Amino acid sequence: LTSGATFTVAHLAARVGGEVVGDGTAAVRRVAPLEDAGPDAVSFFSNKKYRAAFEASRAAAVLVEPGEEVPAGRTVVRVANPYLAFAKISTLFHPPRPAAAGISPQAVVHPGAEVDATAEVMPLAYVGPGASVGPRTTLHPGAHVGAGARVGADCILYPNVTVRDGCVVGDRVILQPGCVLGSDGFGFAFDPEGEGRGPRHYKVPQVGNVIVEDDVEIGACTTVDRAALGSTVIGRGTKIDNLVQIAHNVQVGPLSIIVSQVGISGSTKVGMGVVLAGQVGITGHLTIGDGAKIAAQSGVLADVEAGAVMLGSPARPHADTLRIYASLARLPELVRKVRELERRLAELGEDS
Amino acid sequence: LTSGATFTVAHLAARVGGEVVGDGTAAVRRVAPLEDAGPDAVSFFSNKKYRAAFEASRAAAVLVEPGEEVPAGRTVVRVANPYLAFAKISTLFHPPRPAAAGISPQAVVHPGAEVDATAEVMPLAYVGPGASVGPRTTLHPGAHVGAGARVGADCILYPNVTVRDGCVVGDRVILQPGCVLGSDGFGFAFDPEGEGRGPRHYKVPQVGNVIVEDDVEIGACTTVDRAALGSTVIGRGTKIDNLVQIAHNVQVGPLSIIVSQVGISGSTKVGMGVVLAGQVGITGHLTIGDGAKIAAQSGVLADVEAGAVMLGSPARPHADTLRIYASLARLPELVRKVRELERRLAELGEDS
Amino acid sequence: LTSGATFTVAHLAARVGGEVVGDGTAAVRRVAPLEDAGPDAVSFFSNKKYRAAFEASRAAAVLVEPGEEVPAGRTVVRVANPYLAFAKISTLFHPPRPAAAGISPQAVVHPGAEVDATAEVMPLAYVGPGASVGPRTTLHPGAHVGAGARVGADCILYPNVTVRDGCVVGDRVILQPGCVLGSDGFGFAFDPEGEGRGPRHYKVPQVGNVIVEDDVEIGACTTVDRAALGSTVIGRGTKIDNLVQIAHNVQVGPLSIIVSQVGISGSTKVGMGVVLAGQVGITGHLTIGDGAKIAAQSGVLADVEAGAVMLGSPARPHADTLRIYASLARLPELVRKVRELERRLAELGEDS
Repeated sequence: LTSGATFTVAHLAARVGGEVVGDGTAAVRRVAPLEDAGPDAVSFFSNKKYRAAFEASRAAAVLVEPGEEVPAGRTVVRVANPYLAFAKISTLFHPPRPAAAGISPQAVVHPGAEVDATAEVMPLAYVGPGASVGPRTTLHPGAHVGAGARVGADCILYPNVTVRDGCVVGDRVILQPGCVLGSDGFGFAFDPEGEGRGPRHYKVPQVGNVIVEDDVEIGACTTVDRAALGSTVIGRGTKIDNLVQIAHNVQVGPLSIIVSQVGISGSTKVGMGVVLAGQVGITGHLTIGDGAKIAAQSGVLADVEAGAVMLGSPARPHADTLRIYASLARLPELVRKVRELERRLAELGEDS
Repeated sequence: LTSGATFTVAHLAARVGGEVVGDGTAAVRRVAPLEDAGPDAVSFFSNKKYRAAFEASRAAAVLVEPGEEVPAGRTVVRVANPYLAFAKISTLFHPPRPAAAGISPQAVVHPGAEVDATAEVMPLAYVGPGASVGPRTTLHPGAHVGAGARVGADCILYPNVTVRDGCVVGDRVILQPGCVLGSDGFGFAFDPEGEGRGPRHYKVPQVGNVIVEDDVEIGACTTVDRAALGSTVIGRGTKIDNLVQIAHNVQVGPLSIIVSQVGISGSTKVGMGVVLAGQVGITGHLTIGDGAKIAAQSGVLADVEAGAVMLGSPARPHADTLRIYASLARLPELVRKVRELERRLAELGEDS
Repeated sequence: LTSGATFTVAHLAARVGGEVVGDGTAAVRRVAPLEDAGPDAVSFFSNKKYRAAFEASRAAAVLVEPGEEVPAGRTVVRVANPYLAFAKISTLFHPPRPAAAGISPQAVVHPGAEVDATAEVMPLAYVGPGASVGPRTTLHPGAHVGAGARVGADCILYPNVTVRDGCVVGDRVILQPGCVLGSDGFGFAFDPEGEGRGPRHYKVPQVGNVIVEDDVEIGACTTVDRAALGSTVIGRGTKIDNLVQIAHNVQVGPLSIIVSQVGISGSTKVGMGVVLAGQVGITGHLTIGDGAKIAAQSGVLADVEAGAVMLGSPARPHADTLRIYASLARLPELVRKVRELERRLAELGEDS
């Protein structure tokens, strides 16, 4: 999985705009976590929880913030964002595997599909009629591009991904295994008569699609429903974790972060740069403003303003909920105190 | 995706038992949301949030409730249930794609399977020994019908659906991509000795199956476990959204609605016409009565009576939880007030 | 699905170290739940909720605890752990289906893969270059073993399972349909400049793997992300239910139980014999001690000590949260009482 390349610490520091403090000549062959890094590895330190590991690390160099306190004799690279710098250096050692151009004879590509000559269609992948697959895109085994769907350039569709008919995927999109784009939205109209056959939930045709813009990543077994009409949209550069549910007609803006097991109900609009932490639920037809942050397990029942930080189920401003949580710990005591107050007040009342 | 058909407003109104107010002669070629509808489209208005879009809409006609206030000069179709009427009209324009009879040479159908001559088995679909697939049913690529499983008539199994061995699927059932029927139930008996090899969780054989009755729809990446013994049952006409977990031996009655990311634990019985909103959790061995409604993110720890409306974790009657939520906002203030009361009472006590 | 075998009650009792009270000579052909068991079946009784069903059961024998009260004339097998004994007896009647050695001509096995001669590779399964599959392991249709991945002996990979490149699966591991091992961890570093192209979330290469130790079972559509560096580890004998999210670099100890829809964030360590109930969420970089139990829907934000029992979101010690829940029911009343106290105190103040 590694490129086999070797770089000096100084070279790597230059690559990320950092400053070497110590020995810049050491040869680095890999990146590693603090505790596993040997003298051939570069590591990073940004979470204060891992200070002891930092101090004990045998790494050739550690990426640290400009103001970080460093034990004497250690080589570090001071850089504004050590984690970002580490990511870039890691990419040097682990460049993405390029597509091996060609359609496997064990793949199934409909004669009416258009697959770029530089794309890789692996065995057991499927491309339907009228579908298109762009340059340097890789379809792993079990990946499915339905009829009329379009997948752009430099994408990776991992095993058992489903992109249903008519959906549109931009460039440099990564779809993790088992994720589903374009499943029918959950739309039913209750029909008490059922045209004489008794009550039923009448299926509302879900005839829109899903549009995934450029540079999006979508996690394993995440589901994005097609719109009833129009499009469900995942905006440019947004990253979605595993097992997330995006309902029909949801619009997610660019550069948002949606963590695992979040559920977003139908027609809700999520702005730009929003962060939805794990297991958050959002009801339908809401607007979540740009840059809003919703803490884990929160339940959002109303619009959220841009930049707001929300917590709790139901979600309230973060500070309000923290106060409630702190008070909750004292609630049983409060019940006793009020009982005592009533008793003493009754005595006072009798006395007076 | 459209039928290419054209209908007059009057024809469509008659189809759904509505009354035209305005021009019934306009030619309609499609359905559209209020904001996208041009003079060739019919739309509907039922969620009051979208009143402005209704008033600005250029639709040939809008489906509205009988008593709805309508701007002068607009054509509407008055009908008891505009959303249901819209769904029926949408189906006229978007009829389901019929199965293209035949087994693809790139599908795998065991010689011991029975596939109706009118069924469509697409490339890379699999039908195991002793399995059967009914008339006009479509198996998409990656769909799996395990050994001895039976799938009825007019079903759609979307890509990468798994119906494991021995499961039974009725007629007109729709299985969205990646959903799983018949995975093993989560049953283990703790074995402290492990027959001399130390503690282990001993696997309880899960030898029942899943029965899905007619007219059910099951969402993408939803999982329905097979029974330990007997059957896990999804009742007629029930609709299940994406990423839902139905544990072994659960019984869901007919016409229920189970929204995304709900989890139902083992052996629980869910009645008829129940609504479980998103991310609800229900513990095992409970009974949820007919027509009960459980609000989003609730956690149900006890039986729920028919018709009850529950909210919260732990779930309580909806009105009770709303009162608690309202009080919670005032809890930090309450803590301060009680402290103040104690202080003043102490002063009074000293005075008296 | 049954072995067709017949055993006497006495034989079965001996097999599980139990004591027959009543007729040990009856021939047993199957296991069944209490209400379905006829005179050819053995059943078990351990959940007190089902006492009526026990008393009405027609089973040849029922497995019960040593001290259980039994109606006159009934045959029972007294045994320390009736559920475990039942599971062992059920396995006698339902032995696991052995692998049918051989690679289907409709499977895709890379010439550079090593598949043991006794393994079964079913049609439409895929084994990539450098991957290995051990003795008596079964790969169902749609199962995917990526490049360089290793799967041990006696495993079952059900349909549409994905084991991505480089992951390692031990012996006797069961992977339910649609589960995913080795999807990329959710790691991005925010890059405000994007090297001149504007802000982006820079992908941190996820170049570690997943290690699943022996005797693990992983549920349908559960996702286990590969480590950023190093390994995400699922310990020996741990059992994971459906739709669970295990993030990158999580370490789960042996013999733990993780129920459906749990989410565990990155780098968290879960100890041995831990129980995480349904829909629990755990934030990243925490330590959950051996034997801890976390109740359903809890949200864990801090380390948990060994043996602790936690409840609530945020999670607190179980007893504390129960007290809070009990007090919550009285919170609206408390608000009124404090208002009344303030009023009466004000009156007293005026009087004095």
